[in-house]
Amino acid sequence: MFKKILVANRGEIAIRIIRACREMGIETVAIYSTIDKDALHVQMADESVCVGPPNDSYTNITRIISATVLTGAEAIHPGFGFLSENSRFAQMCQECNITFIGPDGEIIDKMGNKSNARKLMMEAGVPVIPGSKEPVFDDEKAVSTAKNIGYPVMIKASAGGGGRGIRIVRSESELLDAFNMAKKEAKAAFGDDTMYMEKFLEKPRHVEIQILADHYGNTIHLGERDCSIQRRNQKVLEEGPCPILNEELREKMGDAAIKAARYVGYKNAGTIEFLLDSYNNFYFMEMNTRIQVEHPVTEFITGIDLIKEQIKIASGQKLNIKQKDVKFSGHAIECRINAEDPKRNFMPSPGKVDVLFIPGGLGVRVDTLLYDGYIIPPSYDSMIAKLIVHGKDRSEAINKMRRALGEFLLDGISTNIDFQFSIINNDKFLQGDYDTGFVSENLNL
Amino acid sequence: MFKKILVANRGEIAIRIIRACREMGIETVAIYSTIDKDALHVQMADESVCVGPPNDSYTNITRIISATVLTGAEAIHPGFGFLSENSRFAQMCQECNITFIGPDGEIIDKMGNKSNARKLMMEAGVPVIPGSKEPVFDDEKAVSTAKNIGYPVMIKASAGGGGRGIRIVRSESELLDAFNMAKKEAKAAFGDDTMYMEKFLEKPRHVEIQILADHYGNTIHLGERDCSIQRRNQKVLEEGPCPILNEELREKMGDAAIKAARYVGYKNAGTIEFLLDSYNNFYFMEMNTRIQVEHPVTEFITGIDLIKEQIKIASGQKLNIKQKDVKFSGHAIECRINAEDPKRNFMPSPGKVDVLFIPGGLGVRVDTLLYDGYIIPPSYDSMIAKLIVHGKDRSEAINKMRRALGEFLLDGISTNIDFQFSIINNDKFLQGDYDTGFVSENLNL
Repeated sequence: MFKKILVANRGEIAIRIIRACREMGIETVAIYSTIDKDALHVQMADESVCVGPPNDSYTNITRIISATVLTGAEAIHPGFGFLSENSRFAQMCQECNITFIGPDGEIIDKMGNKSNARKLMMEAGVPVIPGSKEPVFDDEKAVSTAKNIGYPVMIKASAGGGGRGIRIVRSESELLDAFNMAKKEAKAAFGDDTMYMEKFLEKPRHVEIQILADHYGNTIHLGERDCSIQRRNQKVLEEGPCPILNEELREKMGDAAIKAARYVGYKNAGTIEFLLDSYNNFYFMEMNTRIQVEHPVTEFITGIDLIKEQIKIASGQKLNIKQKDVKFSGHAIECRINAEDPKRNFMPSPGKVDVLFIPGGLGVRVDTLLYDGYIIPPSYDSMIAKLIVHGKDRSEAINKMRRALGEFLLDGISTNIDFQFSIINNDKFLQGDYDTGFVSENLNL
Repeated sequence: MFKKILVANRGEIAIRIIRACREMGIETVAIYSTIDKDALHVQMADESVCVGPPNDSYTNITRIISATVLTGAEAIHPGFGFLSENSRFAQMCQECNITFIGPDGEIIDKMGNKSNARKLMMEAGVPVIPGSKEPVFDDEKAVSTAKNIGYPVMIKASAGGGGRGIRIVRSESELLDAFNMAKKEAKAAFGDDTMYMEKFLEKPRHVEIQILADHYGNTIHLGERDCSIQRRNQKVLEEGPCPILNEELREKMGDAAIKAARYVGYKNAGTIEFLLDSYNNFYFMEMNTRIQVEHPVTEFITGIDLIKEQIKIASGQKLNIKQKDVKFSGHAIECRINAEDPKRNFMPSPGKVDVLFIPGGLGVRVDTLLYDGYIIPPSYDSMIAKLIVHGKDRSEAINKMRRALGEFLLDGISTNIDFQFSIINNDKFLQGDYDTGFVSENLNL
C-alpha cells in the first residue's frame, strides 16, 4: 500500500480523498492555488504545496508532478474535473514512476473521444443510439435509413449547431417533407446539406452504472444512479436506485456496463452513462473514467467506500468484493448545493459565508469545503457542498432530504437550496416520473 | 399518527427527536429553561415554551404538562434523563390524555426498583447474579451458600459501603477466614455484621441488548452494545457488535432480553443491561425503560431508526420488523464528547465555543447541540456531542473514529477528546480485550 498520496484537486472531493487516506493510514499532500491557501483541504492534509495562481495551478501538470516528486508521494489521486481525464497527465505520471489513481492514459483517450467510444461500444455489443453510419443524401436513402432505425428519428445536419437543420420525425408520412426542409435549412445556414439520422429518444432518463475493475480481470458493477435532474446538462440532483428500474433491467444494464469496461480493458472506478428511453431501451452515452461527484449515492446504498476501493485497486490489490456480495439497501439522494443565484439566472455567488449550519443526524452526509467564515473564491466551480441522504426507501429519503435542506443555513451568499426544494416538492418528482427534460419543463425559472 | 409532539428534553437528544418528527411530518414543541433560550433544539422546533429557570424546568411536571395542553401536542417524548424514567410523569400524561412515548408508568416502577426487578427477572427465568437470598450468619451457612453460588464469591456487609466489609474469595479454603474477617470489619464499621454473599464476576463486560416491543405482543431484539468503557460508572465509549460475542451467545442474550421484556409486558424501546463474565455467563443488571444515549450504535449496524420506531409504537402502530429481518452490518463506535477537563479531574468546562469544526464524511454521524458561538451553560450534563462512526468492520470503525476525532475542533472550552484518543489507541482496546475495569486499570488519569 502507498505511504503517501498527493491529491491533485481542491474542494470537497480533495477532502473526501484525504479522509479516506487518513483512515487507511496513508499520508496526504494537498496542492493549492494562491487563492486557496486557507482552504479546508489544505488544513486537513499532512502537507501542502502551492502550485500557482488560481488559473494555472490545479491543471499545471509540470508543477503537480514536481510537487509529487518533491514530497515523495507515490501516487496521485486526481479527483474529478481538472486533470482527472487528461491522458497526458496520466502518462506523465507513469513516466515519472508515480501511480495515477485511475485507468491508463491510453484508456482515458479511447473513451474520451466520443465517436471512438461509440465505435468501441458497438464492437463490444453494448447498445448505442441507433443512427446512420454514413451521410444520407437522397429521399430513397432517407426512407430506408429511417425504417432501419425505427421511428421517431432525428434528422441532423452534419455541420449543424444551434438547433438548425434538425427535425424530429415520428412517422414515414412526415419524413420526406421534413428531410428536405432540414436540408434546405442546413444549406442556407452552413452551406452544407450533408445530413445524418439517429433515433430520437422520447423523454430519456440519464441512468449510469458504477463499475469497479481491478488489474486481475475482476470487474463488478455497483448498480445505478439516476441523474436525469439536470439544468443545462449539469446534474443537479441524483438518486439511487433509479425509481423506475426493476431487477431485470438493472442486471441487463449492469451486464452491459461490465461488458463495456471489459472490452476496453478498463481498470479502477468508472461510470458508464446510459440514456434510458420510455420503452426501457438503454443506449451507451459516454464513459467517465474517474470518480464522479455523485459517488456517495452508491456508497450509501451499497456500503462500499469507492475512494478506498480506487486506492486499493491502484496499489495492485485484488478486488475483494464479488458481484454476488453487492447488496443494495434503502434509497439515497444527493443534492448539489451551489453558490449561485437562481433569481439571477444561476449566476455564481461567491463571497464570505457569515453564518453556517450544516445539517446532520441519522442518514445525512454532507461533503463540503465550507467552514464558518470561509470566503468562497470566484475562481472555481460553484458547487460548495453535496448533501446526501439515505432512507429505508425513496419516501423516507425524500422526507429526510426535505428535513436536511431545511436545516442548512448559509448566510452571506446565494444558494440553490430553494431550487432544490422546488425539485423535491414537485409532484412528478415525488412520483419518480421524470426525465432529462424535467427541470426545463416543470420548474418555472 | 400524532400531529404534534412535545419534546420534554434539551440538547442533542431533543434535536434527534425533532429531526425524526420532522421526517415523519409531525410538528414539534420544544421546551426550554431560561438559560436555554438560544439553544439549538429551540431553534429547530416548530414551537417552543419556556418552562422555568435552569434548576426547575425540564423536571417540572406541572409546567411541562401545561405546555403540552397549551400547544395542543398529543404526545410527549421524554428523551433520556430528566423525566424519562419518572413513573408519576408517565401516569400524569395518561391521566391528561397525552401519550407518553415510552412504557406505562407501572412498568417503569416495576423495573426501576432494583431488587424488585431482580425478583421479576428470576421469576421470568432470566439469569441474575447468583447470591444468597437471605443473610448468612454462621460458618456452616457460609460454606453451603458459597458452594451453591460457585466460586469466586463476594462477601458483603448488608449495611456496607465504601468498600468496607467486603471480601472476594476464590476457593473454599480461603472462605472462613475471609468471612469472619469481613464480619468483624462490618461490626466495627457499621455496628452490624449481617452478611450477604453473591457471585464475584471476574472482569465483567457491560453488554446490553436493545429491544423493541409493540402493543400487540411483538417483541424483538436489535443486538447488543458493549458499554464496558466507563469512568466512574459513566459510559464513555460504546460499540456494537461486542468484540467478543459470537452468534450463539448473541442469540442467547437476545432471547433472554426478549423473555425479560415479555414477562413484564414491556412496550416501546428499552434496554436490558447485562454483565458478561469471562466464562461467557451473563447476568441481568438492570433495565433502562427509555431510549439511551448510545442508541445510534444500534441504528448504524441495523439501519433501524429507533426514535421513529418509538413514535410509531406509541401511536399504536404494529411493529413491522420481524426478528428474522434484523440484520447486522459492519461495526459502529460512539465516543461521548464532554465539555470537561481530564487534567482537572474531569471537571466540567462550560463556556463559549469560539471555533467549531464538526467532523463529517462517509460513515460519520455527529449528534450535537453545538453551533458556532454557542455558550455551553454550566447547568446541565457535560455531554455536548456524540461522535458515532460506522465501518465495514471493527478495524475500519476504529480508523474512522481516529480520523474523525482528529477533525473535531472545539476552541474555548476543554474536552475529553484526547482522553477518547487514549482509549482508541490503547492496545487492549484495539484487541477488544477490555472489561469494566479498563479505564481505571489502563489509563493513567
